[in-house]
Amino acid sequence: MTAPTAPDRLLSVLAAFDHEHPALSLTDISRRAGLSLTTAHRLVGALTRWGALERDGSGVYHVGLRLWEVAALAPRGLALRQVALPYLEDLYEATHENVQLAVRDGGEVVYIEWLSGRSAVGVHIRVGARWPLHATGVGLALLAHSAPETQEEYCAAPLASFTPYTITDPERLRRVLADVRRTGVAVSDRQVTEDALSVAAPIRGRDGSVTAAVSVVVPQACTQVPVLVPAVRLAARGISRALGWQPETAERPGP
Amino acid sequence: MTAPTAPDRLLSVLAAFDHEHPALSLTDISRRAGLSLTTAHRLVGALTRWGALERDGSGVYHVGLRLWEVAALAPRGLALRQVALPYLEDLYEATHENVQLAVRDGGEVVYIEWLSGRSAVGVHIRVGARWPLHATGVGLALLAHSAPETQEEYCAAPLASFTPYTITDPERLRRVLADVRRTGVAVSDRQVTEDALSVAAPIRGRDGSVTAAVSVVVPQACTQVPVLVPAVRLAARGISRALGWQPETAERPGP
Repeated sequence: MTAPTAPDRLLSVLAAFDHEHPALSLTDISRRAGLSLTTAHRLVGALTRWGALERDGSGVYHVGLRLWEVAALAPRGLALRQVALPYLEDLYEATHENVQLAVRDGGEVVYIEWLSGRSAVGVHIRVGARWPLHATGVGLALLAHSAPETQEEYCAAPLASFTPYTITDPERLRRVLADVRRTGVAVSDRQVTEDALSVAAPIRGRDGSVTAAVSVVVPQACTQVPVLVPAVRLAARGISRALGWQPETAERPGP
Repeated sequence: MTAPTAPDRLLSVLAAFDHEHPALSLTDISRRAGLSLTTAHRLVGALTRWGALERDGSGVYHVGLRLWEVAALAPRGLALRQVALPYLEDLYEATHENVQLAVRDGGEVVYIEWLSGRSAVGVHIRVGARWPLHATGVGLALLAHSAPETQEEYCAAPLASFTPYTITDPERLRRVLADVRRTGVAVSDRQVTEDALSVAAPIRGRDGSVTAAVSVVVPQACTQVPVLVPAVRLAARGISRALGWQPETAERPGP
């Protein structure tokens, strides 16, 4: 184990902030980043001067606007979301259900956008939230189109269970992934919570590779899967085209 | 002038990325950050391992997903935008015009959200873009409700001109700001481009202070100002309430 470098220490200050801890005192930061109070004070000072952190009236630190401005350039973050938003809005208008946009990071999906009506109830996932691939519709769509070795590695590792319906058998997961590739849609039926179902479709980038996924989450009691499939596929194709994807004549959905 | 500290050097790598330069080679980064190639290599390596940067197949660096996830916690960035989005969507549905959400950073507005139909033409401002306060509707709304000394300082400095209609006379700007406070809306009529007009209203936070502004931008030829005013004010009040603002009985719009 090597001592943390100066860049590592600075990044550990940023990493101290997460959804459970969006506002931290200097003491909190020092403790969560594993830094002495003196070092934390110096690094927080530099980050605040630059605008990566902001200090409010009560002396508590928040993530700052300048960091947000730089992060807005992330091609897999806000940039993707800017291209996708009109299509997500159309999908929301067509279904009036929760609409999500997600990308894969290792074995997890990261939600880039989440549209829900003000009165929408049920599942609440924050933008920036993470979830294991095999449980969610977007995760299955992303995993099914990842490199074969990535899929095999994922299937071989333990599969966390969230409800009695979560896929935990690697053989069954392999069959589901093959179905997703064949049909062009992924369905997560009560695999995250027992009252929700999601229908997802993969989004392709300019080079044809799957870079993101879009889904609709509905109360499971609705069981409108056949109705939702064309809408979700259409939204995914629209976003793919906007990203520069050109459908090949060979590309054809399954029966 | 003191030598840059380790944190400053790391942050200068992040600052090398902007809207004109969202993708940079190591050489670009070293040049734009004013660092030796060796130092740039070391810092880019640390940022890439952490996930603040991502290297694509061609060796070019982009802002990474992990930075986006941390930045999503910024109360004045994505967090504000999450609360505001349903109201912005309603405003878009009601008007079918470009809808913006912005905050103030020093003498500039920073656009946090920008909704426009896929077919919308005309003004194109990116999320994260900046603009001087006195030219835009949102900027006038934010400046009018900033501290008196902030306003005085802004009025006393040179006022950049973008069209023949941009306010460049400090006396006139002071009168316009007083009008904004009296009426509760700010209008920028051809002050940014000669074909566009915007109507903005201030958004208040829990403590009653103005923290953001919302606006609608329309082609100037439409001149629908009186029609737009109630819609924009309604959206601003809806977002303010969602942020925890409680209207005081004393608060009353002007005649």
